[in-house]
Amino acid sequence: MTDFTLPEDTKALARRVRQFVIERVIPYERDPRLTQHGPNDDLRAELVALAKAEGLLTPQAPKELGGMGFDHATQAAVFEAAGWSTLGPVAMNCAAPDEGNMYLLSRIARPDQVKQFLQPMIDGHRRSVFAMTEPDGAGSDPGQLKTRAVFNGNDYEISGLKWLITGANGAKTWIIMANVEPNPHGPHGPTLFLTEGDTPGIQIERVMDSMDRNYVEGHCVVRFEGLRLGPSHILGEIGSAFRYAQMRLAPARLTHCMRWLGAAARCQHIALEHARVRTAFGKPLLHHQGVNFMLADNEIALHQARLAIRHVAWLLDNGVRARHESSIVKASVSEELFKVADRCVQILGGIGVTSETVVEMIFRDMRPFRLYDGPTEVHKYAIATQLERQGSAFTDPVGW
Amino acid sequence: MTDFTLPEDTKALARRVRQFVIERVIPYERDPRLTQHGPNDDLRAELVALAKAEGLLTPQAPKELGGMGFDHATQAAVFEAAGWSTLGPVAMNCAAPDEGNMYLLSRIARPDQVKQFLQPMIDGHRRSVFAMTEPDGAGSDPGQLKTRAVFNGNDYEISGLKWLITGANGAKTWIIMANVEPNPHGPHGPTLFLTEGDTPGIQIERVMDSMDRNYVEGHCVVRFEGLRLGPSHILGEIGSAFRYAQMRLAPARLTHCMRWLGAAARCQHIALEHARVRTAFGKPLLHHQGVNFMLADNEIALHQARLAIRHVAWLLDNGVRARHESSIVKASVSEELFKVADRCVQILGGIGVTSETVVEMIFRDMRPFRLYDGPTEVHKYAIATQLERQGSAFTDPVGW
Amino acid sequence: MTDFTLPEDTKALARRVRQFVIERVIPYERDPRLTQHGPNDDLRAELVALAKAEGLLTPQAPKELGGMGFDHATQAAVFEAAGWSTLGPVAMNCAAPDEGNMYLLSRIARPDQVKQFLQPMIDGHRRSVFAMTEPDGAGSDPGQLKTRAVFNGNDYEISGLKWLITGANGAKTWIIMANVEPNPHGPHGPTLFLTEGDTPGIQIERVMDSMDRNYVEGHCVVRFEGLRLGPSHILGEIGSAFRYAQMRLAPARLTHCMRWLGAAARCQHIALEHARVRTAFGKPLLHHQGVNFMLADNEIALHQARLAIRHVAWLLDNGVRARHESSIVKASVSEELFKVADRCVQILGGIGVTSETVVEMIFRDMRPFRLYDGPTEVHKYAIATQLERQGSAFTDPVGW
Amino acid sequence: MTDFTLPEDTKALARRVRQFVIERVIPYERDPRLTQHGPNDDLRAELVALAKAEGLLTPQAPKELGGMGFDHATQAAVFEAAGWSTLGPVAMNCAAPDEGNMYLLSRIARPDQVKQFLQPMIDGHRRSVFAMTEPDGAGSDPGQLKTRAVFNGNDYEISGLKWLITGANGAKTWIIMANVEPNPHGPHGPTLFLTEGDTPGIQIERVMDSMDRNYVEGHCVVRFEGLRLGPSHILGEIGSAFRYAQMRLAPARLTHCMRWLGAAARCQHIALEHARVRTAFGKPLLHHQGVNFMLADNEIALHQARLAIRHVAWLLDNGVRARHESSIVKASVSEELFKVADRCVQILGGIGVTSETVVEMIFRDMRPFRLYDGPTEVHKYAIATQLERQGSAFTDPVGW
Repeated sequence: MTDFTLPEDTKALARRVRQFVIERVIPYERDPRLTQHGPNDDLRAELVALAKAEGLLTPQAPKELGGMGFDHATQAAVFEAAGWSTLGPVAMNCAAPDEGNMYLLSRIARPDQVKQFLQPMIDGHRRSVFAMTEPDGAGSDPGQLKTRAVFNGNDYEISGLKWLITGANGAKTWIIMANVEPNPHGPHGPTLFLTEGDTPGIQIERVMDSMDRNYVEGHCVVRFEGLRLGPSHILGEIGSAFRYAQMRLAPARLTHCMRWLGAAARCQHIALEHARVRTAFGKPLLHHQGVNFMLADNEIALHQARLAIRHVAWLLDNGVRARHESSIVKASVSEELFKVADRCVQILGGIGVTSETVVEMIFRDMRPFRLYDGPTEVHKYAIATQLERQGSAFTDPVGW
Repeated sequence: MTDFTLPEDTKALARRVRQFVIERVIPYERDPRLTQHGPNDDLRAELVALAKAEGLLTPQAPKELGGMGFDHATQAAVFEAAGWSTLGPVAMNCAAPDEGNMYLLSRIARPDQVKQFLQPMIDGHRRSVFAMTEPDGAGSDPGQLKTRAVFNGNDYEISGLKWLITGANGAKTWIIMANVEPNPHGPHGPTLFLTEGDTPGIQIERVMDSMDRNYVEGHCVVRFEGLRLGPSHILGEIGSAFRYAQMRLAPARLTHCMRWLGAAARCQHIALEHARVRTAFGKPLLHHQGVNFMLADNEIALHQARLAIRHVAWLLDNGVRARHESSIVKASVSEELFKVADRCVQILGGIGVTSETVVEMIFRDMRPFRLYDGPTEVHKYAIATQLERQGSAFTDPVGW
Repeated sequence: MTDFTLPEDTKALARRVRQFVIERVIPYERDPRLTQHGPNDDLRAELVALAKAEGLLTPQAPKELGGMGFDHATQAAVFEAAGWSTLGPVAMNCAAPDEGNMYLLSRIARPDQVKQFLQPMIDGHRRSVFAMTEPDGAGSDPGQLKTRAVFNGNDYEISGLKWLITGANGAKTWIIMANVEPNPHGPHGPTLFLTEGDTPGIQIERVMDSMDRNYVEGHCVVRFEGLRLGPSHILGEIGSAFRYAQMRLAPARLTHCMRWLGAAARCQHIALEHARVRTAFGKPLLHHQGVNFMLADNEIALHQARLAIRHVAWLLDNGVRARHESSIVKASVSEELFKVADRCVQILGGIGVTSETVVEMIFRDMRPFRLYDGPTEVHKYAIATQLERQGSAFTDPVGW
Repeated sequence: MTDFTLPEDTKALARRVRQFVIERVIPYERDPRLTQHGPNDDLRAELVALAKAEGLLTPQAPKELGGMGFDHATQAAVFEAAGWSTLGPVAMNCAAPDEGNMYLLSRIARPDQVKQFLQPMIDGHRRSVFAMTEPDGAGSDPGQLKTRAVFNGNDYEISGLKWLITGANGAKTWIIMANVEPNPHGPHGPTLFLTEGDTPGIQIERVMDSMDRNYVEGHCVVRFEGLRLGPSHILGEIGSAFRYAQMRLAPARLTHCMRWLGAAARCQHIALEHARVRTAFGKPLLHHQGVNFMLADNEIALHQARLAIRHVAWLLDNGVRARHESSIVKASVSEELFKVADRCVQILGGIGVTSETVVEMIFRDMRPFRLYDGPTEVHKYAIATQLERQGSAFTDPVGW
């Protein structure tokens, strides 16, 4: 039966998280280490220590590995609360790409892989990368994968060039997608490999300069050359890389939405306070409809985003794969929340484009959200494909 | 605990309603009586008889008065199903303005008023009007009410001019808003009166020509002159008309959204089928992204509308007044569903602007939805006012 | 050298036209003959007589045929002035589809065809049709033409079904597009035929009901069966129908824009006056930014439309084919002017959806503008194709 | 008579400028000195030397002061050509705020002021600031000016706090807006002062961090304390500061539009090339309508922007103040060109948010354009005010 009530313990937890972010994390938003992409593991370590002290580290991890074992519905509230600062999820170890990587590893890694690669991530001791995207396009369209793994019967020699590899700089757990070429020894196809970041043959060519800052370690160009990994480094099954990527992405897209909802809400909060105190033409900005209609539009967008997120969370919690709905939520929430940030910049006026408030950073950090984990257009294409196959979900009045 | 599941009996009912609409109601969409505004009570009577035979007449009415006593959540599913044809709610006696009027009367009418004015409405024997809007503006801004009621100790003499009075033509139950002037006999202020449509002094000046057709009786200009009503004709309390109007509007706005969701879904269904079979430049329209992105946008809009509607229904079912949320849902759903209809017209091309499909009628019928029961701008103003008073609902991570 | 000045005589003429429309044409906007699609040649004849008396009939026609021989730049000002009422162009005999048909005939008809088919059109004695669009799609995509013309050496037997044929009802000059099938007697391919409306074999199956009213005769379904036309009925050259259709469309699209600009300006004028006098919440609507920002957006849209129209007119006057620019102007002007009309409806509130003002009619009449002569999406496709071929016009800083 | 032709010499000049920018300026776009706000006068000096060598320095300056004395129409073509790189106008000494400041000084400075403050600017030897905006709002709403100038009969003591003062860091020519308080010695009111940057009492508190980089020296917080200026430092007349600010702004807004048009065209060029070579799902991005419709939308926006710019340039060249039209052009061009940049980011996908192409920098640099020299909302307010006073320009069919 339809019910939008959050359990009391979820509410309490979300409010505790928000309080933690406000009191302990926000002071770091002006930390100069944020302004340059590059290895910033000391900043991250400080933040992680704060969350650990508060009992809020990696709360989404499975209980048996030390987390709180949240379902997606609980995550929705907690991640939104954490997202009030873009550093909140960094502190709580539930930021991208680690959060999605931990999710994937907890689902498909072998026990020994869990121990070596996942547990130290959950404990906040290491970061990870998911090395999939390539310069020629294996981002939105994974069919273009060019990184190859040649198997000689003993080990796989991996070679190729990846870019936009978030957080590669200093990450210790590496998940690498490569195409196992046909070979006489066994199966082939797109495959995930799992290895340490200091394995010879992994070379970070450079850190790409990008408009976002919240991925404090930036996005890297990575070359694999002479990277040799034995069969024990295979993650899951050979040939199943795209299936695993999708397994990772459905919740990963959603957690992005959750965190950015918190950040957009922060913008709205700041813009609203500004509109209260700042006057123009003899009255507060808030009394100009040109301004307060923007705030109203924001409130509508935030409202719709929260509803859409909670709905997909509920689907996932009920075992529905929800690829279609996760495309809907990603496409609409990323577009609409960016508009929220953009309107807040506009309301703030000149200071909106400066670091006087955090809105400017959120604006820049949120722009890539419309692109990563599938740009809006790819999701619309997916939605349309689903429409072609199954008709509109609204043809049936109880379609969901 | 968050749950989006519909109860099985609601699902079954909604599907039965949809089936009824498809089989029995849609054939009437090409009835020539639809094309002209004016008294069409024979058409309505035929439709009502169909719903009655199916046990689907006035299902939202309280059980003690013969209905099924739906909560708002059930209404959401059933009204969406009914709205697949704009005549569905007419047949099932849950269309505006009757549905809102019945709701209001069931809340505030005296038993004798229920018997005389409400029960025959529930039974499908009569229609009603809510005579509030005036040429000088007592629509969006009720503070401009000019129709006055002068009390001489025995009865109230009501005089004034109303317009855009939906369905006045032939309606038997009249709810009239008038301002009781200060008088020595008792209280004064904006007041609702309840009377029969054939009371002397109620004069329908003309039927206004409008772009919508689904209000088959049209919208009228009504003059009150020499209309004398005794105190027993007062509905509720003297001076409380605006409070009652709000009491009526919060659910009435929402039921509009429910019904139009069904109609917009119908447009999507038709446009999708068209895009499957119609080809251009060598392939189905559906394989042109210029077309299928519109369909994807529609699917997103329908999805968001359904979520927002169900949420407010749940609030109302839990005793929350939800004025703020009902403004959010009205403002966003009316704007977004109209865009759905507009995109469907566009996808259909030339035939989209003709009555070859029902999309054209829905497009025209839906345009006023962005205006009645508060134009979008008035709702944004209300949302902004709420923001000023209470801050953003998203400042608190568990704000709803 | 860049100059936006209109010649004084053009200004004077445009103002005279506007005055004529206001004084003589607008009174007909409430003529009941408008409300039903069907043959209304008496209404048209009355309007035409008014323009003739004023010396404003068919002003765009070549001088040698009795017109004023306007260039496109002059047309831009005059047609905008005429469009203040959607009946203005009807009166002045410069409405679609006649205006485009006269243009085409003046370019490619033989002298005897001019005398029989064009001259009486210019004189206001007859209307015309351009029978191209077919149910299976030969609208946006002319490659799907199914109407065929079989040549037996003596005459062509034409058979096929057309629809959305504007004004077919009562038109005397017919331009029919049909595919001449391969035959041993001569050339073949898509061809235009020119004939009288009462030729046996032309059958008007029905008038389609559509949301627009200004094409007072409506849009028809037409069947050609046993229609036999001798070679003298060929218009231009065999096999060149699409080229002629394009020759007709570039200016025809533009004249649509000109006329609708006038109509949209009328909406703006009405909405602005309404916003001045109507009050809400204690002040004129015009002092609510929620309203006056819409008026400002309208003014911007009107401004951009006028600039874009005048630019293409200038190109055409200078012998540039301007297919690319005519796509740009059609796509943007139709979309933006419809938004103007839509915002004016919104500003007018409840009365905006009624015939209390002409805005409602213009809103409905303008919706098809986004579809005919190529829907927006087809023009975007054309623009993109041009981009692929020639790059952006803005790569060269003096690209136009 | 309407004419959109550019004179041949303007065309040749614009192309020469474009060539200069491509060959000499673009290489500096990856100069590391760009990445940090702060005094970068060496970078600027290098760029200026290049333009000087090419005979392209400060081309818009009056001939008698060493420039080419462009009219606004010529500026439109040349500044668009220069804007292909955001560093182009820096090199050619026609960037904001210097360009506007030079314009103002050439109009109202005394000969001795021209010699001391303007001539070295035209010669490329110094930069300037226009110190108007204040933290409490004297940006969009100049009525809030708080910086005061107390006159003791000998000199003015200026005190106050300004912020968002572009390029203050290292600028030598300072124009300062302060309110001359009522005094017994003469007139009072908002007044401009002109002085050297190293005058005691001018204190740069800090450089504000902002999302744009093209103002290489950033935007500063400036404190005036103990700043004493004699009467000879008054620029123009006492009490006329706002009139001068408007005199400066009408062309300054327009030149922003010109330069950003060039930058947006660059984005379009880059995105189009990317869409040609990058493939997804088996074909070039350019063959996906989801992508090429964005490029078509861009082309429309660029087209409209160029038309609107040239129109206002023509008005200004003809002595029209064009405040209304300059609001229209600023509001629409800034909004639409930013959308162009945003769509280009989207087309580029992941690399769109990195500095792999210049699109990312232009996107960030262009966001403030919607705010400075009057945010869009202030211009809409101005447009609406004009509508209230004079009605729509389109009420008269030859309104401009």
